[in-house]
Amino acid sequence: MLVNDDVDDPTIRPTAEEAISWAFQHGLVVASGKETAGQVFHAPVALYPTPFPKDVFEFAKEITPKFAELYDKVSEDDAFMRETLREAALSDPEFTGRLWKIYEACGKRGNGRLDKELGILRTDYMLDTRSGMPLQVEVNTVSTSFMGLGSKVTLLHQHLAEYTKGNIDDDMKLKKENMPTNDSLNQAAKTLCEGWKCMECENASILMVVQEGETNIFDQRLISQKVFETIGVKTIRKTLREINESGRLDLKTNLFSIDGQLCSVIYFRAGYSPSDFPSEAQWEAKMLLEKSSSLKSPSVAMHLAGSKKIQQALAEEGVLEKFMPNDATEMRKVFAGLYSFEGEKNMQKTIQLGLSNPADYVLKPQREGGGNNLYGKELKEKLENDTKDLPAYILMQRIFPPSHQVTMLRKGLAHEIESLSELGIYGSYLRKGDVNSNTARVMNEHGGSLLRTKAASSDEGGVAAGYAVLDSPYLV
Amino acid sequence: MLVNDDVDDPTIRPTAEEAISWAFQHGLVVASGKETAGQVFHAPVALYPTPFPKDVFEFAKEITPKFAELYDKVSEDDAFMRETLREAALSDPEFTGRLWKIYEACGKRGNGRLDKELGILRTDYMLDTRSGMPLQVEVNTVSTSFMGLGSKVTLLHQHLAEYTKGNIDDDMKLKKENMPTNDSLNQAAKTLCEGWKCMECENASILMVVQEGETNIFDQRLISQKVFETIGVKTIRKTLREINESGRLDLKTNLFSIDGQLCSVIYFRAGYSPSDFPSEAQWEAKMLLEKSSSLKSPSVAMHLAGSKKIQQALAEEGVLEKFMPNDATEMRKVFAGLYSFEGEKNMQKTIQLGLSNPADYVLKPQREGGGNNLYGKELKEKLENDTKDLPAYILMQRIFPPSHQVTMLRKGLAHEIESLSELGIYGSYLRKGDVNSNTARVMNEHGGSLLRTKAASSDEGGVAAGYAVLDSPYLV
Repeated sequence: MLVNDDVDDPTIRPTAEEAISWAFQHGLVVASGKETAGQVFHAPVALYPTPFPKDVFEFAKEITPKFAELYDKVSEDDAFMRETLREAALSDPEFTGRLWKIYEACGKRGNGRLDKELGILRTDYMLDTRSGMPLQVEVNTVSTSFMGLGSKVTLLHQHLAEYTKGNIDDDMKLKKENMPTNDSLNQAAKTLCEGWKCMECENASILMVVQEGETNIFDQRLISQKVFETIGVKTIRKTLREINESGRLDLKTNLFSIDGQLCSVIYFRAGYSPSDFPSEAQWEAKMLLEKSSSLKSPSVAMHLAGSKKIQQALAEEGVLEKFMPNDATEMRKVFAGLYSFEGEKNMQKTIQLGLSNPADYVLKPQREGGGNNLYGKELKEKLENDTKDLPAYILMQRIFPPSHQVTMLRKGLAHEIESLSELGIYGSYLRKGDVNSNTARVMNEHGGSLLRTKAASSDEGGVAAGYAVLDSPYLV
Repeated sequence: MLVNDDVDDPTIRPTAEEAISWAFQHGLVVASGKETAGQVFHAPVALYPTPFPKDVFEFAKEITPKFAELYDKVSEDDAFMRETLREAALSDPEFTGRLWKIYEACGKRGNGRLDKELGILRTDYMLDTRSGMPLQVEVNTVSTSFMGLGSKVTLLHQHLAEYTKGNIDDDMKLKKENMPTNDSLNQAAKTLCEGWKCMECENASILMVVQEGETNIFDQRLISQKVFETIGVKTIRKTLREINESGRLDLKTNLFSIDGQLCSVIYFRAGYSPSDFPSEAQWEAKMLLEKSSSLKSPSVAMHLAGSKKIQQALAEEGVLEKFMPNDATEMRKVFAGLYSFEGEKNMQKTIQLGLSNPADYVLKPQREGGGNNLYGKELKEKLENDTKDLPAYILMQRIFPPSHQVTMLRKGLAHEIESLSELGIYGSYLRKGDVNSNTARVMNEHGGSLLRTKAASSDEGGVAAGYAVLDSPYLV
């Protein structure tokens, strides 16, 4: 049974059934829990693509590769990293602090840091109705997801456009030409392939570092499958715990090796959240990986460069301009206001700013992984009464996106929900050599896109966590 | 989670994981029950293809289209049908008898029976180790299944051949060239497309008559999807109950119509088993469909021609020769011994034959749908003590296939099981015009193949029923 009996609206049910059937036929699925091995759910998706302004989409698409270049440059600027992240590392010793220690140990050439950087990045934007601009929410430099499933969602929506074409009572006339092609799956695979090739180690595999009990495995396995089809290279999936148990550095090449298999590329889909490190074993594994001469995607430096603290520092006057003198003006157009709590002066100024109009701001922890953002009343309370760990937060201008009625499909049910969307633009990035040489950037491409759509009443993101659905933009 | 933790054999687990992941990525899935909408299992499959002699496979492949021609000729021979099925209809009034009544009402030209026949057939064979021949188990003329999933199983095995190529400890060196390409999905879709085209009704859809609570829906939906991709025609899925509620004959064209939508082709994936007719409503629906001028796949005549009683009659001396004078010698090579209980003389002779060596025979009910075959002790008891309804059975020479150790994947578990395999050869068939004109057979092609592999200790077939797995032949 594809669709629950409760979905009896005759204008929705047949299309929902076709959508879920298509999803199961094309691997648009997520694994269910441990107790139901051999069983999957269809991924949570929007039944139809959600309107998004074409010019805003095109601008975001055009500007995004500049951010890959920027963050790579930041990651190679040791002095800037040191200065900017010092306080964040101190105020978050358990996580950012630990990552920083690994950066200290392995961040130098010959010590684990290569003169290469391989990135599958995603820059997230929200359309701000006040400014009409795509304002940047964040640049994800580590463990970006949904390149696999996102591509499939676009294909699903394109299929439904064909499928519902003749429907008389279909008031939503979908036109395929308004749905931008989305090559995120192929681009993610291509990035890993190019990374593997530049390591010139024919017998090596790719290591994918994965979370324990990951349910979003098909998003990952679709990429591995595509890599295997393209260059015949296998992906080995291991958790940090397993890596700690049986990973080692090859004596001759210093490449990471597990179960006797060399891995010339290490692709992180774990290790971005404190919960990925329940014990010292995981930290030891992370250190081992960074010490290896395998190509890390990303390096711990690039990982740390994606911190919100860096994002905030770049927003300060003159900082972005130093890194990207030619492009800063255009890039600044997508910056939302970002304010630090670091230092006594900033602390007071930023608290005052937030309290002046709490509804216009969001308080974000600097750690990655989504969730735990504070809005409205909670934000106000935090700024008034609990200021001690504020330096581990960033105050950000709140973006006001338009809302749409979206039919969400989840676990065989359909719900029409007032929703907001966030646009992700992927980037495929490979640098070989000096970061300041333009010829070293052998790949810096648009890597496809993703729309994540969530209930307007929920302030939290994260499709996997159950708050949102995968979607695609319908350009208008 | 793809594979259950119990599967800890390191020589099986990684490949099993890859296999199940591939299955979920390519729609090699079956629906789970009503209580778990939006969730699917991977289809039960053999991890590796099972050895099958190349010459036996080729012979079966070559001879099979002759059987499509034969059964179509039988279905058009009213006198032979009448004579052969009379007693079967009488001894099974609830099912074969009811189908016969529909044949009587709609079996004539202008009365529902077209001068066309559209067939997706599957002829099942078992390799008999005693004779070295592929002996025919049955010819399925109605509701054949696994064209969709079967194609995917071949692709899965071909993928695993590539995937395990470099494995040092893999003692099974799979060679892709030993795996025959299997076009059953495309062929099934092509058959429906050709049928739809020859009806020359541009706005019509295809009706797929489906069972209530069907779990093998992806096998069916893969075909619908392919049809839609090929000619842009939609498939409407309806149960006999739903057809009874809202189906009608179009006043102008006499084509079947439902929810205002004309259906020029009716493809039966239900109606072959007594359990599909729990009430009069279903019989009324079946009658309505047969009365329509839509192209039925199959017609009720072709459906009835697939009865085991017909198979047995064709095996009698001179009968096959009458229908297929030029090919009978070759075709007889795949006939297993088949014996009727009809008439006092046959009854005594066949009972004696069966009792002379019960282990060499199987007692089969004439109805379709698998299951309920009697072997050994049960066969002996039936022949000795319960002879009243024997005319509804056929005694068949038991085939002794070779057994193999097969790793079966079911619901995330792997089991190595001593197994037997049955080879199905599909046929794509379209006749327009007189059955005796060779030019009327505009399509009679090899339609792909399927191996179904089941535990050697189980005498019952039927993958969906839980006794067997989908497999593909590894030609040796």
